[in-house]
Amino acid sequence: MNKILNPARADWPEILKRPTQTVADIEQTVNQIFDEIRIKGNAAVAKYTELFDGTKLEDLKVSQTEVTEAEKQISAELKSAIKLAKANIEKFHAAQKTSKLSVETTNGVSCWQEKKAIQKVGLYIPGGTAPLFSSILMLAIPARLAGCEEIVLCTPPDKQGRINPAILYAAELCGVTQIFKIGGIQAIGAMTFGTEDVPQVYKIFGPGNQFVTVAKQLATKYQVAIDMPAGPSELLVYADDSANAAYVASDLLSQAEHGIDSQVIMVSTSEKLIDAVSDEIENQLQELPRKAIADKAIENSRLILVNSEEEALKLINEYGPEHFIICSENEDYFVQGVINAGSVFIGNYTPESAGDYASGTNHTLPTNGYAKQYSGVNLDSFMKTITFQKISEEGIREIGPAIELLAEAEGLQAHKNAVSLRLNDLR
Amino acid sequence: MNKILNPARADWPEILKRPTQTVADIEQTVNQIFDEIRIKGNAAVAKYTELFDGTKLEDLKVSQTEVTEAEKQISAELKSAIKLAKANIEKFHAAQKTSKLSVETTNGVSCWQEKKAIQKVGLYIPGGTAPLFSSILMLAIPARLAGCEEIVLCTPPDKQGRINPAILYAAELCGVTQIFKIGGIQAIGAMTFGTEDVPQVYKIFGPGNQFVTVAKQLATKYQVAIDMPAGPSELLVYADDSANAAYVASDLLSQAEHGIDSQVIMVSTSEKLIDAVSDEIENQLQELPRKAIADKAIENSRLILVNSEEEALKLINEYGPEHFIICSENEDYFVQGVINAGSVFIGNYTPESAGDYASGTNHTLPTNGYAKQYSGVNLDSFMKTITFQKISEEGIREIGPAIELLAEAEGLQAHKNAVSLRLNDLR
Repeated sequence: MNKILNPARADWPEILKRPTQTVADIEQTVNQIFDEIRIKGNAAVAKYTELFDGTKLEDLKVSQTEVTEAEKQISAELKSAIKLAKANIEKFHAAQKTSKLSVETTNGVSCWQEKKAIQKVGLYIPGGTAPLFSSILMLAIPARLAGCEEIVLCTPPDKQGRINPAILYAAELCGVTQIFKIGGIQAIGAMTFGTEDVPQVYKIFGPGNQFVTVAKQLATKYQVAIDMPAGPSELLVYADDSANAAYVASDLLSQAEHGIDSQVIMVSTSEKLIDAVSDEIENQLQELPRKAIADKAIENSRLILVNSEEEALKLINEYGPEHFIICSENEDYFVQGVINAGSVFIGNYTPESAGDYASGTNHTLPTNGYAKQYSGVNLDSFMKTITFQKISEEGIREIGPAIELLAEAEGLQAHKNAVSLRLNDLR
Repeated sequence: MNKILNPARADWPEILKRPTQTVADIEQTVNQIFDEIRIKGNAAVAKYTELFDGTKLEDLKVSQTEVTEAEKQISAELKSAIKLAKANIEKFHAAQKTSKLSVETTNGVSCWQEKKAIQKVGLYIPGGTAPLFSSILMLAIPARLAGCEEIVLCTPPDKQGRINPAILYAAELCGVTQIFKIGGIQAIGAMTFGTEDVPQVYKIFGPGNQFVTVAKQLATKYQVAIDMPAGPSELLVYADDSANAAYVASDLLSQAEHGIDSQVIMVSTSEKLIDAVSDEIENQLQELPRKAIADKAIENSRLILVNSEEEALKLINEYGPEHFIICSENEDYFVQGVINAGSVFIGNYTPESAGDYASGTNHTLPTNGYAKQYSGVNLDSFMKTITFQKISEEGIREIGPAIELLAEAEGLQAHKNAVSLRLNDLR
């Protein structure tokens, strides 16, 4: 793992650089598949499912029988674990509900704000090297709590045309309304344009590889919103001598096993700890089934020694990590000072995996520095705010003359007239 | 104005169609200008300012002297009107502040959520046919309240290289930190990539023509967020016989004067009212200085007679209007039933211009049906949410075994290890 000792401020951009992806050639593929889905609907989706997933499906939609069968295949222990996670996620996201906010800004001028659920949402869950059913909990639970009417799930089938039973079980448990065996670009296209079977949704959520990421980005041209732009997963740990080197190493590795483009960074004021963590990583790495992946990710990653906690905090906010672990005697300094991060994990007994699965916070988080301007998924991600205003005769008398002046100054006479007509009648 | 009487459900999509824009050819122009700005910075911005705005600037940045001069040119009355609007907007947006939200999801597992301001934001204000200084109030006031550190404003200069004094006055009053004489695509490019003078920002807000709209959309490829995708402004009025035809006509016209691609729709259960409003529009239209624009917009617009209030509400939610005026004896039915709308105006004394300027609500709203999934600009638009978690020894004992099971089921051994290591030490 790369050790970087006391880097100069000017070198930060280079040190904090993320592994980059090229999207230009993917764009063309996405545009072509989107065009076909728009014209041919189901047939195009089935064609690309055969091409990319290697299976010819009679029915894109998962049947109730398949869901019932899946439930039988899940062990009682796993079901309990999923239910424990669900309970915590529900508790944290239900607490995010807000009530109507009402203000009388001027006598007779009432303004209020109410949140309404987005009626139709689409969730995407990748297949690939690991069946990420936990992402269903993270997306379907807040969608359900928000009150979304249609919660559509797309996930790729395996070569036998099946979906992992844990995915089906979690989807059923969390209130997904329809499940489709569709993956990748064709899934995003189907939910963006709608087909004979797949409903057109208003907003698409969920993780995915670079094909899915580019497809989601391009989908925003066609009246659909997305949760956030995505990049490879990442973790930054700040740790000092109060940290446990083995724990820190295990957290860095849990991030590294996600994918070869994952990035893990440790920042510390202690060179001793950096050395200890580096050794621990080497040891623990040998035991991992996903060693090959983690090994690659570790190549992109860094252990950075800094001169002070102040410098560490500046560097962390400059990077804006998706996941940020704080193991420091002086944890309050970092908790209060962090501005740019997706989710923060505090203390020796708060591994990132806790937030990935079961603490209750959401694991759909801004990567690639997007923590500077995006929130992770939360209850509000499934809602939108409408403002209301109701003005009485008294109210329009109070603010009407100002509106007339402002509209006139902007050269918008009809805006002024709308007020003048009313004020004249009230005279 | 087009009258449509009792349309069939199947015809709604056609009737509710919005005027469309073609963006393909604009994309190429945007990409070229972006590329130049990335490489040549200020020089490229100045070149396009000369080309598009017809003025050669020595300095892109507005000086303090220019701001001070501008203040002298604004009448005392206009200043008071701007201050009245500011006070109401501040009151409504300050009320949107939320405090830290904290939940113990399981014994020993504390999760919380905090909002932090986006550090650097960019505001765009168009020049063109009307100096829309009111948009500065709508964007800079919540940016300031949120606590954004840098609030950068770009707005195009006139042929003499000057900015309208009302824009400069409003910007100074509302806490904009830097003002640049840059318009159109080059403004969005400058704030996206940064130049020698213009800071790179994390999120760009504000209205604009189709060039600005496409530039904002493409900017999202380069690590910048935008407030929302934009389209032409629009208004839908639901009115019954309790409404005043002259008021309704004046509201429809105030929307129509925005631009030739604005869309105004009236829905009613009363054919009598539809005829009266139609006549009023003809009359009032003659007096408008922006008659030519409003005339064109009215061509795209519709008066729709429906059979019932139920049908009206369904049609309105299907359309998802940016602005929605309710003038009905049965207003509660619509207030409670509206799901998709940007901002709602209730009753005979609540013209849309009130919300455009001074009621306190924001006028930066989702157009083009985006009310189905986007909120209008509000305080949260200038912030992002960070989640935190802190787990005690007791807490990890409680949820650790479930995390081990879940991680194992997803095939993520390193995620499991991070918990197992800790649980073993606690045994």
